Amino acid sequence: MLNKNKVLGKNAIAPNDPIGFKFDLIKNSNKKLAYNIRLSVSEFTSICPVTMQPDFGILIIDYVPKNWLVESKSFKIYIQSYRNYGIFHEEAVMKVGVDLFKSIKPVWFRIAGYFAPRGGIPIDVFWQSSKKPNNLEIPELKNFERKLFNR
Amino acid sequence: MLNKNKVLGKNAIAPNDPIGFKFDLIKNSNKKLAYNIRLSVSEFTSICPVTMQPDFGILIIDYVPKNWLVESKSFKIYIQSYRNYGIFHEEAVMKVGVDLFKSIKPVWFRIAGYFAPRGGIPIDVFWQSSKKPNNLEIPELKNFERKLFNR
Amino acid sequence: MLNKNKVLGKNAIAPNDPIGFKFDLIKNSNKKLAYNIRLSVSEFTSICPVTMQPDFGILIIDYVPKNWLVESKSFKIYIQSYRNYGIFHEEAVMKVGVDLFKSIKPVWFRIAGYFAPRGGIPIDVFWQSSKKPNNLEIPELKNFERKLFNR
Amino acid sequence: MLNKNKVLGKNAIAPNDPIGFKFDLIKNSNKKLAYNIRLSVSEFTSICPVTMQPDFGILIIDYVPKNWLVESKSFKIYIQSYRNYGIFHEEAVMKVGVDLFKSIKPVWFRIAGYFAPRGGIPIDVFWQSSKKPNNLEIPELKNFERKLFNR
Amino acid sequence: MLNKNKVLGKNAIAPNDPIGFKFDLIKNSNKKLAYNIRLSVSEFTSICPVTMQPDFGILIIDYVPKNWLVESKSFKIYIQSYRNYGIFHEEAVMKVGVDLFKSIKPVWFRIAGYFAPRGGIPIDVFWQSSKKPNNLEIPELKNFERKLFNR
Amino acid sequence: MLNKNKVLGKNAIAPNDPIGFKFDLIKNSNKKLAYNIRLSVSEFTSICPVTMQPDFGILIIDYVPKNWLVESKSFKIYIQSYRNYGIFHEEAVMKVGVDLFKSIKPVWFRIAGYFAPRGGIPIDVFWQSSKKPNNLEIPELKNFERKLFNR
Amino acid sequence: MLNKNKVLGKNAIAPNDPIGFKFDLIKNSNKKLAYNIRLSVSEFTSICPVTMQPDFGILIIDYVPKNWLVESKSFKIYIQSYRNYGIFHEEAVMKVGVDLFKSIKPVWFRIAGYFAPRGGIPIDVFWQSSKKPNNLEIPELKNFERKLFNR
Amino acid sequence: MLNKNKVLGKNAIAPNDPIGFKFDLIKNSNKKLAYNIRLSVSEFTSICPVTMQPDFGILIIDYVPKNWLVESKSFKIYIQSYRNYGIFHEEAVMKVGVDLFKSIKPVWFRIAGYFAPRGGIPIDVFWQSSKKPNNLEIPELKNFERKLFNR
Amino acid sequence: MLNKNKVLGKNAIAPNDPIGFKFDLIKNSNKKLAYNIRLSVSEFTSICPVTMQPDFGILIIDYVPKNWLVESKSFKIYIQSYRNYGIFHEEAVMKVGVDLFKSIKPVWFRIAGYFAPRGGIPIDVFWQSSKKPNNLEIPELKNFERKLFNR
Amino acid sequence: MLNKNKVLGKNAIAPNDPIGFKFDLIKNSNKKLAYNIRLSVSEFTSICPVTMQPDFGILIIDYVPKNWLVESKSFKIYIQSYRNYGIFHEEAVMKVGVDLFKSIKPVWFRIAGYFAPRGGIPIDVFWQSSKKPNNLEIPELKNFERKLFNR
Repeated sequence: MLNKNKVLGKNAIAPNDPIGFKFDLIKNSNKKLAYNIRLSVSEFTSICPVTMQPDFGILIIDYVPKNWLVESKSFKIYIQSYRNYGIFHEEAVMKVGVDLFKSIKPVWFRIAGYFAPRGGIPIDVFWQSSKKPNNLEIPELKNFERKLFNR
Repeated sequence: MLNKNKVLGKNAIAPNDPIGFKFDLIKNSNKKLAYNIRLSVSEFTSICPVTMQPDFGILIIDYVPKNWLVESKSFKIYIQSYRNYGIFHEEAVMKVGVDLFKSIKPVWFRIAGYFAPRGGIPIDVFWQSSKKPNNLEIPELKNFERKLFNR
Repeated sequence: MLNKNKVLGKNAIAPNDPIGFKFDLIKNSNKKLAYNIRLSVSEFTSICPVTMQPDFGILIIDYVPKNWLVESKSFKIYIQSYRNYGIFHEEAVMKVGVDLFKSIKPVWFRIAGYFAPRGGIPIDVFWQSSKKPNNLEIPELKNFERKLFNR
Repeated sequence: MLNKNKVLGKNAIAPNDPIGFKFDLIKNSNKKLAYNIRLSVSEFTSICPVTMQPDFGILIIDYVPKNWLVESKSFKIYIQSYRNYGIFHEEAVMKVGVDLFKSIKPVWFRIAGYFAPRGGIPIDVFWQSSKKPNNLEIPELKNFERKLFNR
Repeated sequence: MLNKNKVLGKNAIAPNDPIGFKFDLIKNSNKKLAYNIRLSVSEFTSICPVTMQPDFGILIIDYVPKNWLVESKSFKIYIQSYRNYGIFHEEAVMKVGVDLFKSIKPVWFRIAGYFAPRGGIPIDVFWQSSKKPNNLEIPELKNFERKLFNR
Repeated sequence: MLNKNKVLGKNAIAPNDPIGFKFDLIKNSNKKLAYNIRLSVSEFTSICPVTMQPDFGILIIDYVPKNWLVESKSFKIYIQSYRNYGIFHEEAVMKVGVDLFKSIKPVWFRIAGYFAPRGGIPIDVFWQSSKKPNNLEIPELKNFERKLFNR
Repeated sequence: MLNKNKVLGKNAIAPNDPIGFKFDLIKNSNKKLAYNIRLSVSEFTSICPVTMQPDFGILIIDYVPKNWLVESKSFKIYIQSYRNYGIFHEEAVMKVGVDLFKSIKPVWFRIAGYFAPRGGIPIDVFWQSSKKPNNLEIPELKNFERKLFNR
Repeated sequence: MLNKNKVLGKNAIAPNDPIGFKFDLIKNSNKKLAYNIRLSVSEFTSICPVTMQPDFGILIIDYVPKNWLVESKSFKIYIQSYRNYGIFHEEAVMKVGVDLFKSIKPVWFRIAGYFAPRGGIPIDVFWQSSKKPNNLEIPELKNFERKLFNR
Repeated sequence: MLNKNKVLGKNAIAPNDPIGFKFDLIKNSNKKLAYNIRLSVSEFTSICPVTMQPDFGILIIDYVPKNWLVESKSFKIYIQSYRNYGIFHEEAVMKVGVDLFKSIKPVWFRIAGYFAPRGGIPIDVFWQSSKKPNNLEIPELKNFERKLFNR
Repeated sequence: MLNKNKVLGKNAIAPNDPIGFKFDLIKNSNKKLAYNIRLSVSEFTSICPVTMQPDFGILIIDYVPKNWLVESKSFKIYIQSYRNYGIFHEEAVMKVGVDLFKSIKPVWFRIAGYFAPRGGIPIDVFWQSSKKPNNLEIPELKNFERKLFNR
């Protein structure tokens, strides 16, 4: 089922930035059935391009696959490539979303990013590729809002 | 009401894999009334086919019965048959869903699978047989998302 | 307002089973206004007809009254009549729902039953008399799911 | 903005019952914008007219104002007037709702009442003046259900 | 991306009141994609114009940007300018909402304000610029209701 | 075991104030074993003697009985007698504690009172008759602190 | 290890009352090591001997075994024998405690009982056989206090 | 009981800073009994003396009174006097503690301050006047730590 | 620091049972400082030796190291070796504890096991090698009790 | 009060590793009073020296100051210096603890580190410089255990 086992089951190091990253893909073996996959990332971190301070966030991705699933270990390495990369909250969420969307070309795609507060004010960002399909079960997002960064 | 009391009230051992499993069925004694049944499995475990490491997940199944209900003890034994079976998260959820759907042939069916994180990233999978009926009470899924695997 | 004060304010003992029970009713003094009433039962218990083991559940009932409200103490006694009565989860919820629905003949009626796990797998049952009215406030059910039976 | 400052900033004592109460009103200074106001009362108490026992409840009121807002201190005094007044749960919620609705004549109005259990069974009551407007943000009610009266 | 870096990365002091404030704006670099941004303010405080007592609230702002994003540090300073400013709850929420809406001219805008109870009764205020777009992911508000001011 | 069944199983009305109240007592049938009893009151309400405003509180009482237990229905009626009685928080807790202590003459006694905030500042009061016995299981108090009066 | 496998792995029915019950015992195979065992019962129910109303409670038992462990299925059946037995809260907890203590003769024993509120006032009961041993890990009790009977 | 009713029941404005503040005191009418009083302040705010940014904190004060109690409204006004006063976290907590301690001269005194994070790192400060008395019930502090400032 | 890097950074498969397992050890590089290490296992599963049904548990291990730390990946593999091994709850906890204790020979050692309920009654087991050292910070156990197996 | 304002109120960049870091110190202006300060770090991240994967943790530091406090911004920068530094969990906690302890030379010092699970098993580390002083208020640690890394 896994067409290119590049990183799963091996040691792999993340690149220094996310530019030009190639995700490992898995063939969707249930292509005839429309279903949703959620990936939850609680360890996203990047650098503020103005102050050079580290930022911390949670990403929640939901997608309805067409031909491909993303292999989760290559996805993890992609996420790690933001570790020393300077980017604003809004752009980081949009870049992760668009990069993954372009790679797996799903039926539908959504990303939500929740960041630790800076100056006491947290910023969250939400994008979806098109209107939510109403004949599928897409879990809601709101329970994730209060899970991390609590004091 | 129970047409074939195969395992309820007896000791029963799960088979080594879920291939070809036959569920015990119960006649739906309220066939004239459309209603929903939820089965919650907090002890699903299987084996990663690449790394051979055990995986742990929660399954939440909702269905609107037509002629048959699944007898819950035979369902439990079916779930246990994945214990030493190698299968990816996405395929496991889809197989449990399709196997049960084909057996009880309900009016409507939905399955959600929530897995413990691997590499820090949990994967969840959601499938339903058709659009959610809007004249029935189908409870939402989101409260289940944060119940297990907490630290 | 209370047409027949049979049990309210008096000591009353529950019958041995729910067969043929007559609920005390209260006239709906706000008949011109469509509104919803919720009754929450956290102490439902009955007997498994196969294993004779006690079962424990929560029932949540919502209804939009027409001419009658159910008097809550007679409702409590009705619930207690299941204490030593053998009945499966699915049938118990449907029986409570249909008995009460036939007695108070409301505009709309819904019942949800959440049972303690047996064999590690809890069963929940949901029935409503017709499509949920969309011009009334009917509170959602999902918050009740995780209140009892926690470990 | 406050047209009649009758009780705000002064000591004021609640009347013995809610009959004929006049709310202090505030002119809606944002009349051109449709918005929602929520008032939350966690200290409602009244008397059961049959058993003379005190009852305790929470009231949540949402309304979309037209010309008037209710001044919150006069509203508090109105609520206190139920303290020694005999009234059933269902009627209390409907009376508070209708009294306030008739006074402020809002675009839309909703009241929810959640009472402490009596005989182990809590009763909740929900009324709205008309279908919920779908072009406004009206917060959901369900989070309030489990806030008080916990053991 | 930041067109006018007025306050980010520098020390900046809030003005004495919010009258005539100019927000720093950031060009929307993802203008072709419709997405939502949430800003959460848990440290809003102002003065009651009648009693001169301090008030405390939470503000949750969601907006779908068109040409501009608000720079979050200038937004923080704007919020601080209410610290010694006399204004009622309802007006404060509407003023913050309208001021920001007029500045960033978004596709859609929503503000919610949750205030600490006074006289035991908290007041919340909700406004949105137009009907919620149904082809975008706009997170729900209700999880914020019970986060602050708990006892 | 119950020496004077004055109010249990009967309708009973609370007096207008707690002065001179006589509790119903139950003989301690396990006198040879030292054990602790906890009574939890979540519906205490009284009147502020200066502002005449109602106050709301929780009382938690623990005691190690000697010859007598307090009958819980007479205790409930005693608590209700504070409903229209003017008394400060500190004095109310001490009076309930001393009245009950003098009546049941236990080996050890503790009372805690947690009141709803007034002016944004809640007051709690704690008294025990003597040092906590270290050879008995006396449950801690802190879990009760955050149960009521949440927003 | 199990000296008398009377009920484990078999169907067994509880007697009508707990009088004269004999627990199945298991030999302590780690007798040289002092350790603690906790049994948690969330489905205890009995009958009030005065009002004949059902009562519901949680029991938490901790013991440091000497020669014997209690077999948990026979313990479950013993608990079920209280289902239609009339007994007060305080006496029920003490009887369960003393019966089990006398049977397994442990080094140390503790029982806590938390009952659903009656008349709005829950009663809890705590007994231990002797001072808590300070060289063993005995988990605290307080987390159990707020798990059941929530509204 | 209140020796000097200076601010209770009247409108009162806080001074610009806490220097030289005189608390209103109440005579301790239960002087013969040693007991503890807790005051909880969830709305403390002051100014950082270096950055001039507002800070937000929670203060929890416990004291065992000797001759005097602090009147809670004058205490509220004292707290408000820090609103525009420049002071570091550590010094603010110590000043509130020492000022109140010197005024009421209690048997024992403790203050805890929990501040909203700055730079992602919250600071808490804890001081008590002497060793905690072991024959009194002094509630623990830890439950307060996670109540405010949640995201 | 790692004396024998047998499994860390490599793929490794668990043996079929825990008999004779050898843990990989790490030299304690902070031997002069007494400190505590906690390992938390939320994915323990074994087989009931009588019914052959799977059991699920959580293990919490605290130890004060002397010469050696346990390498966490070899510890994980050891835990996995119980997957198809028949053992009672009490014996499983004691065997894990004694095996690890004998291998790392720490200054102090404690293990707690919390199992999913069987027959509605969960069993927990607690063992420590000697009295808890009072000059070290050993975190309490009770917060773990209610994390898994919730409904 | 601040003896060397090196980084507070200025932009400052963290060094590449924590070797040889010098903390900014603040003179303790309440030296005559023994009190405790807690610093909470929810954004600690470092690199596993074997797998080169990022690790994430929470650090909780309590100390009773003697002559010096640590300035919190320089402390934040020190924490950031671990971002790309390879170190095991146990050593990271001990190094942060010993570095800070040696710099501020407090009366008493404690550090706790809670790490995100790797291989499903989280590791926590606890160290204190000497026995906890029993005449000071030192808040407990256990509430921090379950705040981050929740799923």
